[in-house]
Amino acid sequence: MKKEKVAVCPGTFDPITAGHVDVIKRAAKIFDKVIIAVNGNPPKDKKPVLPVGVRVKLIREIAKDIGRNIEVDIFRGLLVDYLRKKKVNVVVRGLRAISDFEYEFQMALMNRKLAPDVEVIFLMPSEEYTYLSSSLVKEIISLGGKVGDLLDKNVEEVLRKFLNKRKI
Amino acid sequence: MKKEKVAVCPGTFDPITAGHVDVIKRAAKIFDKVIIAVNGNPPKDKKPVLPVGVRVKLIREIAKDIGRNIEVDIFRGLLVDYLRKKKVNVVVRGLRAISDFEYEFQMALMNRKLAPDVEVIFLMPSEEYTYLSSSLVKEIISLGGKVGDLLDKNVEEVLRKFLNKRKI
Amino acid sequence: MKKEKVAVCPGTFDPITAGHVDVIKRAAKIFDKVIIAVNGNPPKDKKPVLPVGVRVKLIREIAKDIGRNIEVDIFRGLLVDYLRKKKVNVVVRGLRAISDFEYEFQMALMNRKLAPDVEVIFLMPSEEYTYLSSSLVKEIISLGGKVGDLLDKNVEEVLRKFLNKRKI
Amino acid sequence: MKKEKVAVCPGTFDPITAGHVDVIKRAAKIFDKVIIAVNGNPPKDKKPVLPVGVRVKLIREIAKDIGRNIEVDIFRGLLVDYLRKKKVNVVVRGLRAISDFEYEFQMALMNRKLAPDVEVIFLMPSEEYTYLSSSLVKEIISLGGKVGDLLDKNVEEVLRKFLNKRKI
Amino acid sequence: MKKEKVAVCPGTFDPITAGHVDVIKRAAKIFDKVIIAVNGNPPKDKKPVLPVGVRVKLIREIAKDIGRNIEVDIFRGLLVDYLRKKKVNVVVRGLRAISDFEYEFQMALMNRKLAPDVEVIFLMPSEEYTYLSSSLVKEIISLGGKVGDLLDKNVEEVLRKFLNKRKI
Amino acid sequence: MKKEKVAVCPGTFDPITAGHVDVIKRAAKIFDKVIIAVNGNPPKDKKPVLPVGVRVKLIREIAKDIGRNIEVDIFRGLLVDYLRKKKVNVVVRGLRAISDFEYEFQMALMNRKLAPDVEVIFLMPSEEYTYLSSSLVKEIISLGGKVGDLLDKNVEEVLRKFLNKRKI
Repeated sequence: MKKEKVAVCPGTFDPITAGHVDVIKRAAKIFDKVIIAVNGNPPKDKKPVLPVGVRVKLIREIAKDIGRNIEVDIFRGLLVDYLRKKKVNVVVRGLRAISDFEYEFQMALMNRKLAPDVEVIFLMPSEEYTYLSSSLVKEIISLGGKVGDLLDKNVEEVLRKFLNKRKI
Repeated sequence: MKKEKVAVCPGTFDPITAGHVDVIKRAAKIFDKVIIAVNGNPPKDKKPVLPVGVRVKLIREIAKDIGRNIEVDIFRGLLVDYLRKKKVNVVVRGLRAISDFEYEFQMALMNRKLAPDVEVIFLMPSEEYTYLSSSLVKEIISLGGKVGDLLDKNVEEVLRKFLNKRKI
Repeated sequence: MKKEKVAVCPGTFDPITAGHVDVIKRAAKIFDKVIIAVNGNPPKDKKPVLPVGVRVKLIREIAKDIGRNIEVDIFRGLLVDYLRKKKVNVVVRGLRAISDFEYEFQMALMNRKLAPDVEVIFLMPSEEYTYLSSSLVKEIISLGGKVGDLLDKNVEEVLRKFLNKRKI
Repeated sequence: MKKEKVAVCPGTFDPITAGHVDVIKRAAKIFDKVIIAVNGNPPKDKKPVLPVGVRVKLIREIAKDIGRNIEVDIFRGLLVDYLRKKKVNVVVRGLRAISDFEYEFQMALMNRKLAPDVEVIFLMPSEEYTYLSSSLVKEIISLGGKVGDLLDKNVEEVLRKFLNKRKI
Repeated sequence: MKKEKVAVCPGTFDPITAGHVDVIKRAAKIFDKVIIAVNGNPPKDKKPVLPVGVRVKLIREIAKDIGRNIEVDIFRGLLVDYLRKKKVNVVVRGLRAISDFEYEFQMALMNRKLAPDVEVIFLMPSEEYTYLSSSLVKEIISLGGKVGDLLDKNVEEVLRKFLNKRKI
Repeated sequence: MKKEKVAVCPGTFDPITAGHVDVIKRAAKIFDKVIIAVNGNPPKDKKPVLPVGVRVKLIREIAKDIGRNIEVDIFRGLLVDYLRKKKVNVVVRGLRAISDFEYEFQMALMNRKLAPDVEVIFLMPSEEYTYLSSSLVKEIISLGGKVGDLLDKNVEEVLRKFLNKRKI
């Protein structure tokens, strides 16, 4: 009998986009279980628009449609500490572009230094999501644009409310 | 009789540099009319040093010397909404380096998603402006440096005043 | 009355792919006339699989469906000499990825040195063609694969014949 | 009971280096079985120095030390056809640098087009192998250099013989 | 008799890492004297965690172990003005990755514009420091992680104190 | 009294271009002596157009005008063996673009593996030579183009003769 293979997909998910969903679906085909780990640290310079509780709730609703092997969780502190606690040593990251590449490699190599047993694997999202990022989506919505199927309808509505609140 | 070809050159122009002028001149040779569209949105994280009115005024003075087919305008909100209003579907962007490349492609592909009829064309500035950016110019001037012919003399003077005011 | 705007799309087109067609269509929307200039120089290190006459014939059949403002021609020698002869000073190139970027910039800057009045403009193909190249297509077909809508059916058939002939 | 997870590591391995071994070991920790698939196609422009039989034999000797879940095989023709035959839909590739990145993404996206159910995952080798490539190793050895622990001793000896034979 | 060769290593050093030390050691082997020039300008958007005096003190303690030809100094204002004052015209910078590359080239070309006689030379740190940056180190320590030999023990302790103070 | 500082500039120089000369001049300002080491190995895949003797002769004529501290030499075999023989441990390389960057880093890291005491330093040529390469120059001249001041007049003439001879 083979051991269950688990992978963690960490991220800020502010908000979760169709690009994130694409990568999570690919991970869910490869691994027996995928844990979406939402970053609950208050980042100093890029404070999320959506509170971590809202981000988790939105992901949970979407995760139901992906499959039964998806779990949604919050992590605070270092990712490697979270991985140790969960006894998982595979991290999944989407890799879209060169700028991603450098940042992701830097993070992955540093994590390897901190926890040599952790392996980061990179998956490519569908090429239609190459240009998609949470920050670009927020910029468009805050300027009154519509992003079509790049966001789940419910996610878009919630995001719009939070962005409008911010302006006041 | 051929239809008039119009292109929009959008940007923050905080301030307009010799690199911007170089790209605008190249666009003006290819198209019948070039609209320099100055971004009047208050960007959250990178507030311009120069008010949009000042930026437009400085560009207008320089544009007079480029040719009669240059128009200077302000846009607020999404660029694609501005393009629709002006009935223009060609956007011109300068492309200097790899980092530009990734950002520009992301923006261009997102704009294509929002407005499939809009085409973004990329022009290369002269290689002597490869290293030139508005933010680098502001940093040098705020540290008391001189940037020679990288800025129009009048632009440099106005910028220096605004940067000094800021420090107080 | 405005002068007719003409652009040249140079390339080896060995063979023309859906990515080339995508870029040519975008150019044909911006310019009054687009000349597809097929490189007829015998390149030393990457000899084309298809003779230049065959490449031109295949492009002509596809060009008919793009629109009336497309012309197909052969150029030999330097591109800048061809441009001077045709009195065209706009070159259109597709720009897909970083490796393209560096090569294209090198060529464009060298052409600017040779002919300062020539302007190279870069267009982005649809993101679904990001990964597409003539050489990759040839590799797949020579290994017996099918490339679906990445090649025109007629082009694929002709290419397959030439690749099979080569093996004998 | 969970299904056995199998991944294919394709490559030319001319010869297998410490960088390849590093990536294979990482894959072997994540998956239940790893198939090293040696490319047996005669590539037109980069003919291997070592015959495919020799390459397989060298890998087999090294694979014994990695673990029991490694299989070594030859594939000819398209990788996706091989994957279908073996009923595997995960491919593992090492990703060292930007140039890798572009080539690997192009191949992965093309493979996705040919076989949408195949997922390519990228692993990072240890940073000490960032600069290592089979071709660089061959160049150094053919010039009389020693590459230390970058090659298995046996591999180095066999490679040196074949490179010397070539020169005559 | 040959003139003494002096090079300046400028940086923010907030804090000095093992990667900086690696580059400084390499510079100290090539040049007769190396001046570590600590940036004492208050940068607007990235205010250092450590005051410039603390940064200099930490570097001085480390510099003692590197060799007698190291000097530590503060510079304010433009680097080129500092170089003129010190009569040095060689600047040494570490070059780790593509993102560095673009930023460093932009800075080096702008400095060349401001002071054509200044030459910037780039050195590669050991590949084990490729992923190392002062900001990543600060992020890990502020989340309670340990960075091992990436920081001098004393530097790590001082940094931890300042980061903890900040949180209150 | 300080020891004489010597650096080696290795290359194929097929032929030497204005970009090479620019980098050599910069090196000659920093070091007491610069040895231009011309690669005399017969490279398998990119056989030089000019015999190594001709390349050395052309460089010698140009070197006379740069200064008295330039020496021209041939190296065969591994660069690190040549450096050991000459007792030099500084190598100078020009760094123009991203593609250079990756290749140069790979070579420099491999050389560091082979000879840890050797330091490679990178210099930036003037931005007007960013696009310049020996192979591009050969392509233009073989197609009948003129490259102006990118090549020394004498070099251009000799190169043209050898390229014409080749065609017959």
